[in-house]
Amino acid sequence: MLDRVTPKNAMLPALDLARRIEAGELTPAQVIERCAEAIAARETEIGAFAHLDLDRARQAVKAPGLKDTPLRGLPFGLKDIFDTADMPTEYGSRVYPGHRPANDAALVSMIRRAGGLPIGKTVTTEFAHLDPGKTRNPHNPAHTPGGSSSGSAAGVAAGFFPIATGSQTGGSVIRPASYCGVAGFKPSFGLLPTIGMKCVSWHLDTAGIFAAGVADVAFAAAAVSGRDLRVDAGAPAAPRIAVLRNPPWPAANADMNAAVETAARTAEAAGASLRDIELPAILGDAYGIHRLVQAYEAARALAYEYDRHGDRLSKNTRELAESGLAINVADYDDARRITKRARQALAGLMDGIDIILSPSAPGAAPEGLGSTGTSTFNRLWTLMGPPCVNVPGLMNSTGLPLGVQVIGRFGGDRAALGAALFVERALGRR
Amino acid sequence: MLDRVTPKNAMLPALDLARRIEAGELTPAQVIERCAEAIAARETEIGAFAHLDLDRARQAVKAPGLKDTPLRGLPFGLKDIFDTADMPTEYGSRVYPGHRPANDAALVSMIRRAGGLPIGKTVTTEFAHLDPGKTRNPHNPAHTPGGSSSGSAAGVAAGFFPIATGSQTGGSVIRPASYCGVAGFKPSFGLLPTIGMKCVSWHLDTAGIFAAGVADVAFAAAAVSGRDLRVDAGAPAAPRIAVLRNPPWPAANADMNAAVETAARTAEAAGASLRDIELPAILGDAYGIHRLVQAYEAARALAYEYDRHGDRLSKNTRELAESGLAINVADYDDARRITKRARQALAGLMDGIDIILSPSAPGAAPEGLGSTGTSTFNRLWTLMGPPCVNVPGLMNSTGLPLGVQVIGRFGGDRAALGAALFVERALGRR
Repeated sequence: MLDRVTPKNAMLPALDLARRIEAGELTPAQVIERCAEAIAARETEIGAFAHLDLDRARQAVKAPGLKDTPLRGLPFGLKDIFDTADMPTEYGSRVYPGHRPANDAALVSMIRRAGGLPIGKTVTTEFAHLDPGKTRNPHNPAHTPGGSSSGSAAGVAAGFFPIATGSQTGGSVIRPASYCGVAGFKPSFGLLPTIGMKCVSWHLDTAGIFAAGVADVAFAAAAVSGRDLRVDAGAPAAPRIAVLRNPPWPAANADMNAAVETAARTAEAAGASLRDIELPAILGDAYGIHRLVQAYEAARALAYEYDRHGDRLSKNTRELAESGLAINVADYDDARRITKRARQALAGLMDGIDIILSPSAPGAAPEGLGSTGTSTFNRLWTLMGPPCVNVPGLMNSTGLPLGVQVIGRFGGDRAALGAALFVERALGRR
Repeated sequence: MLDRVTPKNAMLPALDLARRIEAGELTPAQVIERCAEAIAARETEIGAFAHLDLDRARQAVKAPGLKDTPLRGLPFGLKDIFDTADMPTEYGSRVYPGHRPANDAALVSMIRRAGGLPIGKTVTTEFAHLDPGKTRNPHNPAHTPGGSSSGSAAGVAAGFFPIATGSQTGGSVIRPASYCGVAGFKPSFGLLPTIGMKCVSWHLDTAGIFAAGVADVAFAAAAVSGRDLRVDAGAPAAPRIAVLRNPPWPAANADMNAAVETAARTAEAAGASLRDIELPAILGDAYGIHRLVQAYEAARALAYEYDRHGDRLSKNTRELAESGLAINVADYDDARRITKRARQALAGLMDGIDIILSPSAPGAAPEGLGSTGTSTFNRLWTLMGPPCVNVPGLMNSTGLPLGVQVIGRFGGDRAALGAALFVERALGRR
């Protein structure tokens, strides 16, 4: 039996906070203190932070005019693969203990320009790949929060900050968002710059945003990017939804399939149109070569770390680099050609529909902290590059969140967010 | 009257050196000492290096097995926008005095893996943009070497190293190669990774290679990338050449137009076919929006430097960032769409031809060191992404080199290099 996630958690809704600051009902300093309270109450248990600096944030929040900025001084968690000049940046790796970059990543500068206030660096798996950090799932600390953006998703879910940055090379935004019951937004490839974000794969790495709900991620992405991405002005239009029930990869579990059915039927009842969709073979081929692209590029992007500090890399990261070195360049070039053809096929496939609806992950967050789960339901979309949104709002019988994934057209980020908000609101009215 | 560049300069031909090392006629250590002699003789005058460490190279060249690597221990100059963990990296900027990155750029690691030996960092304009460093043109020290890869092009021309890395966002590989009379290779966009190369514009920045002649850059690019790019195995096929005599931008000067005519007629006499080509309007549109893409992205890529250290930026760099901040995101998105359509048009335009032949620069290197010249003849190709090769071999009446530019099909890097070698050999046999 699928039910809504009960609002027992202390999530901080960014858009609502911003409006209350604008209205003079709340100050940025008060928001920091709310974060501080949540962190004091649960950080020991959750472990979302690789580095936390509330005192710096308390100083920074005194800057005049902060409440008049687009982000109104709202606190941010920054995944610890984004370079920061004023906080350590360790990339979840033993190669970089206490590393202090010489500059901020472009996205970090853009957040600061828009009036966002970084309060700490959040736990990432090693180089945003497989090896988990210390973070636990706020909905059940015996379960993984997902990865690689573990601390960002868990920290939003636990109310440690209203907004966080993440990145996705396989499924590292959408999956942890699903596991932690928060909204996650992986924009169209290239919409948010990745300069100063530790690279694993330059054709896959995509910067993303976490926040409590869909309107909150849209608000944050709009403010950071300066783009027209907000969806909170009125009721979103009813989307034409294609449900991907038979993907060319292993099926989701029963809980997750039920969540997608619930989301689809609820959206239909609210006015959306539904149809089934089957992916053509070329998209199955593209799914199959994601790992090859990632490994080939990781072997070069992480060459220094592998060549000079291989003994401080995890077995998974070493194997990624080694498998990448073993790939023939002709196979890599073939994979790039398959990618191009698959993108064209996907664009054609979406004629007449607004979004594809699919699971965000194979199921709810698995028990245990040894793995952050698999990117089965995400990696094709990372390779194809369209906007993806994890819509929170459902949970399984044990109280763990189940997210559904809204996949839009490449470059149609606002439409994808609008459709995701439509689904989210429909679920909220059940 | 156009003549060949006299071989009075002491250029070190990489391919020949590699073959002689392979044959046991020369050791990598002896090559280092040749570089050291040339540097001792002319570096004070030329100023190619931002940082030079011959002693480190003399130690590194003792590594066993170096002569059996693809690059056979050949010395490299690294443009000082590529991060190096063992040498300072200042990006030509007063923001980063003595900066020591925590790791090597991906391309630097790939050079080391292939057995290349970095001996120093070469002078770049500030952040590879406009403001010149100290470098002078080896063919006439009163003239600019071109930029932004000033030290790499001048250093190859002066025999300081046989191979160097460069980067091109506007015309920063092809133009200095033309001005200094060396081969310059700007590969297809993305062929050489830009991870760890200071970013100005993520849709434009392209890593490239300098060496004495076309076969040398092809050898170096092949060894570094692991790709089948060498063109020295036999006589290159006679290419179908389209001569771009009436581009949608200001004409080259008479010297340069004569150089292109000479190259075209000489190649035709050697068996190449010639035709004229006119660029469709969409390519003129693309030419026109290069600057917009560069500025929009630079305003974000250099956000930290602009926001935190604006007083240490040159006026040109500040203006680039400021103009980028003033660009409407809708105009940027339009520019990206124009880019996409123009790339498709260019692909169609090249049906039935192998290369476009055009000037590498408006003329020979201008007098004075206050400017490194303009990217008029390069920036469209940087935006479009096809491989470009500067073919050296001609000079004007004052002894300054005039390079011609061979533009291939996107992804057809080996064919472009082969055609460039055909033109170079035809010029050499005159």
